[in-house]
Amino acid sequence: MSKLFTPLDENYQSRVQNSFDRQQCMASLNITMSKIEAGKVELSMPYNKLYTQQHGFIHAGIISTALDSACGYAAFTLMDPTAAVLTVEYKINLLSPAKGEVFLFEAEVLKPGRTITVAEGKAYAFNGEEKKLIASMNGTLMAIMERNDIKH
Amino acid sequence: MSKLFTPLDENYQSRVQNSFDRQQCMASLNITMSKIEAGKVELSMPYNKLYTQQHGFIHAGIISTALDSACGYAAFTLMDPTAAVLTVEYKINLLSPAKGEVFLFEAEVLKPGRTITVAEGKAYAFNGEEKKLIASMNGTLMAIMERNDIKH
Amino acid sequence: MSKLFTPLDENYQSRVQNSFDRQQCMASLNITMSKIEAGKVELSMPYNKLYTQQHGFIHAGIISTALDSACGYAAFTLMDPTAAVLTVEYKINLLSPAKGEVFLFEAEVLKPGRTITVAEGKAYAFNGEEKKLIASMNGTLMAIMERNDIKH
Amino acid sequence: MSKLFTPLDENYQSRVQNSFDRQQCMASLNITMSKIEAGKVELSMPYNKLYTQQHGFIHAGIISTALDSACGYAAFTLMDPTAAVLTVEYKINLLSPAKGEVFLFEAEVLKPGRTITVAEGKAYAFNGEEKKLIASMNGTLMAIMERNDIKH
Repeated sequence: MSKLFTPLDENYQSRVQNSFDRQQCMASLNITMSKIEAGKVELSMPYNKLYTQQHGFIHAGIISTALDSACGYAAFTLMDPTAAVLTVEYKINLLSPAKGEVFLFEAEVLKPGRTITVAEGKAYAFNGEEKKLIASMNGTLMAIMERNDIKH
Repeated sequence: MSKLFTPLDENYQSRVQNSFDRQQCMASLNITMSKIEAGKVELSMPYNKLYTQQHGFIHAGIISTALDSACGYAAFTLMDPTAAVLTVEYKINLLSPAKGEVFLFEAEVLKPGRTITVAEGKAYAFNGEEKKLIASMNGTLMAIMERNDIKH
Repeated sequence: MSKLFTPLDENYQSRVQNSFDRQQCMASLNITMSKIEAGKVELSMPYNKLYTQQHGFIHAGIISTALDSACGYAAFTLMDPTAAVLTVEYKINLLSPAKGEVFLFEAEVLKPGRTITVAEGKAYAFNGEEKKLIASMNGTLMAIMERNDIKH
Repeated sequence: MSKLFTPLDENYQSRVQNSFDRQQCMASLNITMSKIEAGKVELSMPYNKLYTQQHGFIHAGIISTALDSACGYAAFTLMDPTAAVLTVEYKINLLSPAKGEVFLFEAEVLKPGRTITVAEGKAYAFNGEEKKLIASMNGTLMAIMERNDIKH
């Protein structure tokens, strides 16, 4: 995973950050964007008891939420500046329970496209010095043009 | 989708409800369990601006969170009473933007198993009288025995 | 699974059958089309030792091949008559080993769309009188227009 | 993708090759195994008109068949020598049409486990000097013990 992509929009970083900042869900979950590159995005989230499942780990769906945003914004870095991005589908494998103090979410574009982009994401849990892979996502994103209800 | 399953545990409904009640994530998202049958579960959630994405719809990851819990508890109804349940993986297709006043999540076991159970879920949005299919999930759940950190 | 769809093309059945007949892979695997309706397709395949895996069951990939064609043609029934269909992605759960004398593949459109269609498929094995669900697929299909290398 | 795994079985290469050689499906599709390492496998297949879809490309299901075997045998390298391997599920994204003279399939274990192993695969098409990524798979494999109908 180390491809070089040329963004269509030289201001992609501010465009991505602005869209991310309008996702109230990210603020509610205390997820922040720590890196934006062409075709690549990193998010992070601290442990929060409010979003745990029955064993005290972060709920798999919350891990998905962060990875879905990461994959979506990785795709969005390479899209036409007038496009909006929607998730078509994703699959996630939960590899280890989401226990840790902080979680990191890395996503990269695997195949960009005018309409359809495929991206991959990995989630890691940090416990002190230890960094552990806890989930893997593979998703399909779509560039949407000219819909009144879906602005970019 | 209308199979008949015989639960191993006659008290499966209280066992499922107790586990669900320990998912703090469900309370935080205001998701409640509206039906528990053998191999079948229904959850519902009101619209909440706090969990929206950049277009004002509920974030796809939050829809996943509810469907994942629904699939997990549908599987859990049929598991051995000493088992804990963990999600191995799921895939979700987002069929329409999650806009609505209330959301319904239905999940059913497709194939139960001693270790591995496969379940399917559908999410619907309600706008006034209209009920619209917005997402479809297919997931793999695992029964976990005898782990100290993962109680049922 | 019992929706009513209105095809854009009244000759969808011959269009689908013609395209299917050009899939040499279907003839090689001895897969035939047994039903074509609006948004719904059925295929069948006899057991064939040539396509088995190490335990003597039909290879999971061959089951996927039939289900992918079934999902693709279910989507194709509802597409514009000038469109070609390509598979964007699919996920398959293998529920039981593919042992049987004959296999049936049913696919239905879950959500049609101008560009993106989502379809679901189920595979069954027949052993004498017994009919057993062996696999479940959920896939995304895309309508392709105006590409010289991809005719409908 | 470059992890170091320690196989439980020092004879894993011959065990994997023997099992692969019993997959009649691989011989029928002319798929051969070109590399076996701990947690990693490579297969290759020449273009074959018999397995094409309606546009003359290799059928997506056949690409899946090769990637599924690759993921399964990557997982199998790390399994207990008495285990059999079955595919629980996989998802494949088709990134480009499968046109080429030769196809390469690489699979690696992402997370090994006593019961459940997750593996990833990539398919490439070769046209002369050009190597192009055409598909990406993410699958879940299961180690099966003590079933009379499923030998390793």
